[in-house]
Amino acid sequence: MNTEILALAGGVGGAKLALGLSKLLPPDDLTVVVNTGDDEEFHGLHVSPDLDTVMYTLAGLSNPETGWGIQGETFNALERLTAYGADTWFGLGDKDLATHIMRTMMLGQGNSLSDVTLSLSRALGVAHDIVPMSDDRVRTIVETEIGPLAFQDYFVKHRCEPKATAIRFDGGAAAEPSPGFKRALESSDAIVYCPSNPYLSVAPILEVGDVREKVGHFPGIRIAVSPIVGGEAIKGPAAKLMAEFGIEPSCVDVAKQYAGLCDCFVIDEVDRGVAGEIESLGMRVEVCNTVMVTEQDKIDLGCRMIEIATE
Amino acid sequence: MNTEILALAGGVGGAKLALGLSKLLPPDDLTVVVNTGDDEEFHGLHVSPDLDTVMYTLAGLSNPETGWGIQGETFNALERLTAYGADTWFGLGDKDLATHIMRTMMLGQGNSLSDVTLSLSRALGVAHDIVPMSDDRVRTIVETEIGPLAFQDYFVKHRCEPKATAIRFDGGAAAEPSPGFKRALESSDAIVYCPSNPYLSVAPILEVGDVREKVGHFPGIRIAVSPIVGGEAIKGPAAKLMAEFGIEPSCVDVAKQYAGLCDCFVIDEVDRGVAGEIESLGMRVEVCNTVMVTEQDKIDLGCRMIEIATE
Repeated sequence: MNTEILALAGGVGGAKLALGLSKLLPPDDLTVVVNTGDDEEFHGLHVSPDLDTVMYTLAGLSNPETGWGIQGETFNALERLTAYGADTWFGLGDKDLATHIMRTMMLGQGNSLSDVTLSLSRALGVAHDIVPMSDDRVRTIVETEIGPLAFQDYFVKHRCEPKATAIRFDGGAAAEPSPGFKRALESSDAIVYCPSNPYLSVAPILEVGDVREKVGHFPGIRIAVSPIVGGEAIKGPAAKLMAEFGIEPSCVDVAKQYAGLCDCFVIDEVDRGVAGEIESLGMRVEVCNTVMVTEQDKIDLGCRMIEIATE
Repeated sequence: MNTEILALAGGVGGAKLALGLSKLLPPDDLTVVVNTGDDEEFHGLHVSPDLDTVMYTLAGLSNPETGWGIQGETFNALERLTAYGADTWFGLGDKDLATHIMRTMMLGQGNSLSDVTLSLSRALGVAHDIVPMSDDRVRTIVETEIGPLAFQDYFVKHRCEPKATAIRFDGGAAAEPSPGFKRALESSDAIVYCPSNPYLSVAPILEVGDVREKVGHFPGIRIAVSPIVGGEAIKGPAAKLMAEFGIEPSCVDVAKQYAGLCDCFVIDEVDRGVAGEIESLGMRVEVCNTVMVTEQDKIDLGCRMIEIATE
């Protein structure tokens, strides 16, 4: 029996589980829908950081040190852009630039972000579908003590330092889910929330058009993996944001974000003690190792997702 | 007494003499007007090969091996563009890409090519004005036995191999000279035709709007340096083109191209024997070493230009 999975992913953490799933499922049985609220234009080029992280990871090109970017990267163009007085706080590498140049050219020719992503990922040998959450423009804006910041401004330029007060997704309500996302929402047997930041990576996906409603009425099983383990984020500002929003950083509060949208919540062994609290939110809890360091960790967690989805 | 010089240049050969002149003249006394008929769009980026060659040369950044491109260049982006299936016969380096990215962005923001060129060259420390021949689109098309080819198609992709039958400059008649070119035509005491290809590099400049007429009535002295020495082109396809057009490649025939537009024709020592033929075209002839290998050669030839202009 084939089980078709729709994985929702942000950047590095999401890409890890997406890789695990891609090692286990044939291409027809996996669609990875990726956050594009973080997209930004740098030097006139359309950059889609999360799409690229997932694409490079599935293509086996990603930098193993950082989880994002391309291995063996150089930064010669960026050095020259700096000489021209460009604002180069976003570290675009030479190899990575090729992606943004191609994407910008193809979008300029009237192709959708879905078509561009498919074309680029196939060219890199990725057999599974990587799909933007929407072909429409949605932008994650972090309201902070120093004013509203576009996501990359907040995340990269300001290193998540300004205290956040709210997050909004400009264009989200008016946006349509991409054709591939719509199709996967209809045909998949399970939705997997990869361990990505619930506020910054998964929330924008849910805010696209009627996605939240569709996920709420999804007939199959919805499985979430907590990106908060032992009260800390594996990567990125999730725990810091929770503290700023007055929430004790814990996987329980991640689960609260997914209340009504999740059937099975997967937590790490170290969080076994809070399983009861999460169950009281109306979700079943699964406990396993969720920290993915090696490729085998990614495959093992992917395997667990498939087991849960096919039970 | 200040002598203001307007230098007309194509790529490598023109850049050499422009460099020599720039080492001798204060910024106010030199304007280098550059061919943009060779401009091309690659991967959605606006590339101006001749402007860049002159800019990199005057900035001290150019690759001494080739005369074009940037020293210490890498090609990592191009390798990835190739992986994406892009047509990468035009060898854009990583450092060079920064120029095209900035230019494309600034043009997209509504800046003229003149403004962009000024901004980029000043950022690289070039004090002298480098000016495109026009801010309007002019494209050099080489009619060949295999059909019409855009200049870079002819020059780089096909390595000048197809037999040329004619050259045309699309958009030339309708184009306006750039503001800096107009200003220099009015204020300069001398025009110097750098030793660039008369058909492919200087002709497009003369074909812009009323430039040929203005140069014909130029009140100061007009000095041309032959790019053909001893019957051969120092670089590029000038001699091959002349042969295909049924002309014996020689500096005499270069002089014929400039008949009525030139007062003093400068030939190399090796061509001293044909001075009389050139004089019969109504030009005075000067003989000196015109082959610029070392920086001192470039300064010496620049010095000779200034001597002739100030006589």
